Amino acid sequence: MESVLAYIEANTERYLEELRRLLAVPSVSTNPENAADVRRAAEWLSEHMQSIGLEHVEVFPTPGHPIVYGDWLHAEGRPTVLLYGHYDVQPVEPIDLWTSPPFEAAVRNGRLYGRGTADDKGQIFIHLKSIEAFLKTAGALPVNLKLILEGEEEIGSDHLEAFVEERREMLKADLVLMSDTPFFGEDLPAICYGLRGLSYMQIDCVGPNRDLHSGSFGGTVHNPIQALAEIISGLHDRRGRVTIPGFYADVVALTPLERKQLRRLPGSEEGHRRFLGVPALFGEAGFSSLERTTARPTFEINGLTSGYQGEGGKTIVPAWARAKITMRLVPSQRPEEIMKAAIAWLKRLCPPTVRMEIAPGHGAPPYLVEPSGVHAQAALRALRAAFRREPVLMREGGSIPIVTDFKKTLGADTLLLGLALPDANAHSPNEKFDLDCFAAGQRMSAWLWQELAKTK
Amino acid sequence: MESVLAYIEANTERYLEELRRLLAVPSVSTNPENAADVRRAAEWLSEHMQSIGLEHVEVFPTPGHPIVYGDWLHAEGRPTVLLYGHYDVQPVEPIDLWTSPPFEAAVRNGRLYGRGTADDKGQIFIHLKSIEAFLKTAGALPVNLKLILEGEEEIGSDHLEAFVEERREMLKADLVLMSDTPFFGEDLPAICYGLRGLSYMQIDCVGPNRDLHSGSFGGTVHNPIQALAEIISGLHDRRGRVTIPGFYADVVALTPLERKQLRRLPGSEEGHRRFLGVPALFGEAGFSSLERTTARPTFEINGLTSGYQGEGGKTIVPAWARAKITMRLVPSQRPEEIMKAAIAWLKRLCPPTVRMEIAPGHGAPPYLVEPSGVHAQAALRALRAAFRREPVLMREGGSIPIVTDFKKTLGADTLLLGLALPDANAHSPNEKFDLDCFAAGQRMSAWLWQELAKTK
Repeated sequence: MESVLAYIEANTERYLEELRRLLAVPSVSTNPENAADVRRAAEWLSEHMQSIGLEHVEVFPTPGHPIVYGDWLHAEGRPTVLLYGHYDVQPVEPIDLWTSPPFEAAVRNGRLYGRGTADDKGQIFIHLKSIEAFLKTAGALPVNLKLILEGEEEIGSDHLEAFVEERREMLKADLVLMSDTPFFGEDLPAICYGLRGLSYMQIDCVGPNRDLHSGSFGGTVHNPIQALAEIISGLHDRRGRVTIPGFYADVVALTPLERKQLRRLPGSEEGHRRFLGVPALFGEAGFSSLERTTARPTFEINGLTSGYQGEGGKTIVPAWARAKITMRLVPSQRPEEIMKAAIAWLKRLCPPTVRMEIAPGHGAPPYLVEPSGVHAQAALRALRAAFRREPVLMREGGSIPIVTDFKKTLGADTLLLGLALPDANAHSPNEKFDLDCFAAGQRMSAWLWQELAKTK
Repeated sequence: MESVLAYIEANTERYLEELRRLLAVPSVSTNPENAADVRRAAEWLSEHMQSIGLEHVEVFPTPGHPIVYGDWLHAEGRPTVLLYGHYDVQPVEPIDLWTSPPFEAAVRNGRLYGRGTADDKGQIFIHLKSIEAFLKTAGALPVNLKLILEGEEEIGSDHLEAFVEERREMLKADLVLMSDTPFFGEDLPAICYGLRGLSYMQIDCVGPNRDLHSGSFGGTVHNPIQALAEIISGLHDRRGRVTIPGFYADVVALTPLERKQLRRLPGSEEGHRRFLGVPALFGEAGFSSLERTTARPTFEINGLTSGYQGEGGKTIVPAWARAKITMRLVPSQRPEEIMKAAIAWLKRLCPPTVRMEIAPGHGAPPYLVEPSGVHAQAALRALRAAFRREPVLMREGGSIPIVTDFKKTLGADTLLLGLALPDANAHSPNEKFDLDCFAAGQRMSAWLWQELAKTK
């Protein structure tokens, strides 16, 4: 282990330079215009994996963005770990809020700023670098390793499930390892044992057959913006609860023990409020912010588009108004059922004065697994060794659709071992990764292979 | 008159070509990037006015867009008419809904399509061409004429009032003539005796200090979109009435006689619904569509902007949500008072979980004058002569801020003599002007100078 850790430390500068090259590729999976960039990121990773000593490296095409695979399988009798990550990133809009260009990673105050630094290129890279350290010093890894990197996580992992299904023999593993979730706090490394699910859709309220002069026609049609506002405002009650009938029916209630554990974690409501910069927090009545983001479902509007949005004014009644929506789901809500209930409720809320067009999108079920197994215990030891802190067991508010697919197809549970700090600005302008965490993460990753080797 | 009308007919093709050149200048006053185009339109008009025989033609600079003036003052003992028009146009967005490019006027089915064909370049041009016909045939006009063309009508005529005030001697007239309102129906030329006023503002609901990952943070802050939707939905009650306290206090009720006259006009609610393509009409309960657009005030949202609006989805809680708003006002509502009441009410509707930023814009008072005077009677005769129809007396839902300023500063009432058809798509994609109306409008304009000459 000592030579491995020494190798990591000696190569810090080079590691960072390599990561910057990967971050420079604008692999925004949601934007069709970036398709070639997404492919370029896959090819870059494939070359890099070969260069550090991984074998059978291949870029597999899919009907969408490609999947990169590589392995090292010479640790006979040792467990096999499937390391999953994604090399696609979120869009960068609003671009004018970035302090430095999102695809030209820049170091400021000990942090690396750029799209993908935390979600998820930076975290993939941490593991690649500990693998390199083992292969270049010991010439071997303590475990068998399979690496799978997809390019569609940010748009619903549409083609990963079929790929895993088709190549289930190639991907077979004792556990899946994934680093795509954050720490609990600056000094609180964490293992995540639960994720929220997701349902996405887009709704359009369609009114008149064209934008109307608000002087000549205003007052005689239901403004689609007003209709949409009425629908949206009807989706929550005064206590912050989602009004969709049956929305909470399958929600597993927090146990008194879970609530007690959550209350023990550091952080205050007032601190959370200041961190987000809002005049007051708001959410489902009867729950703390931590409970709301991890164990309670939500209904969020992600964007609005309607009418004139340019400089100055334009006196029109717009022809239509659009809202983009995601619902975050918790165990045991099922995305298809919730989507069905939501669509029925939206149709009921829609006034007869406008037409509603609904475009349902992808979904992902929520995930929950008890963190008492040997793999979780090995991970806790690795985290302690690298960060010299007692790690936290937590649930996360985000969604990683593929976790339930891995369980279903490969029979393997997933170890969710996030290495980004909670203020990493994933999905926001000025996404960043703490450089100390980058170094400690590589040490943790090295310890992890060592500790996981003992589990079989 | 005969030689004047013959001249108009003989020059139809050339007139149309000249108009197309004026329409080709994208004089969008609201967009700072088009400032040079607005100036170019002013200069084009100034040269054109000189070429048809108008005198003292000058382009007056203002702190905003310039004002074009010209006159012909040799009809001693005859009334003086101040002809007002505007050469600026509305933005063209959404550009993809135009069948032909908005600044390359195209003839289809006897109509000229392009931005400004109806509002207001086409209507200005009609009068310029009758003036040309008089000056090129008789060598004189039957009345004294002053022509003033501004470039800021679509953005609130910010600098016209001061200009009129400063040059009140130069602009002094017995009446103002303005063609910027539509016909009542295809075969129903109209004189408009009332206009709605206007109040413009923009409101922002500001929530978290950045766009948030909806998984990590969703459920703990009031989504600014939801807050904005709650505010907007609180601005009307179930009967379609605006909820701002005092909003209707100064509204002059329609008299039973006015309502009876309105009911006599052709057109049905069902026809109106089909024309606009909505599933059902909607507006203030207890009033017909015609009453709603002409004699009742409204509160309209003209545009919405928030969060992610691109392709696909983005799982964020946006930092802010914006609405652009115009209120249409009727006699005797005062824009400043209504704006004050609206701001107070918006602040009360705003939940404590977001901050509200309000940017009040320009306003214009409503206008109403009884159509029984000599000038209106002269106009009715001109309309009958040119269109061979009995004209309609009507009120219009749009706003022309300067009308009340002319009254205040020059003491002159305004003759509102619109020549566009009601389906002209002013402010919308595919704005158009009927070519038969273009020809008949020029004849009407010629008759009008003749008839107005008799009023003094």
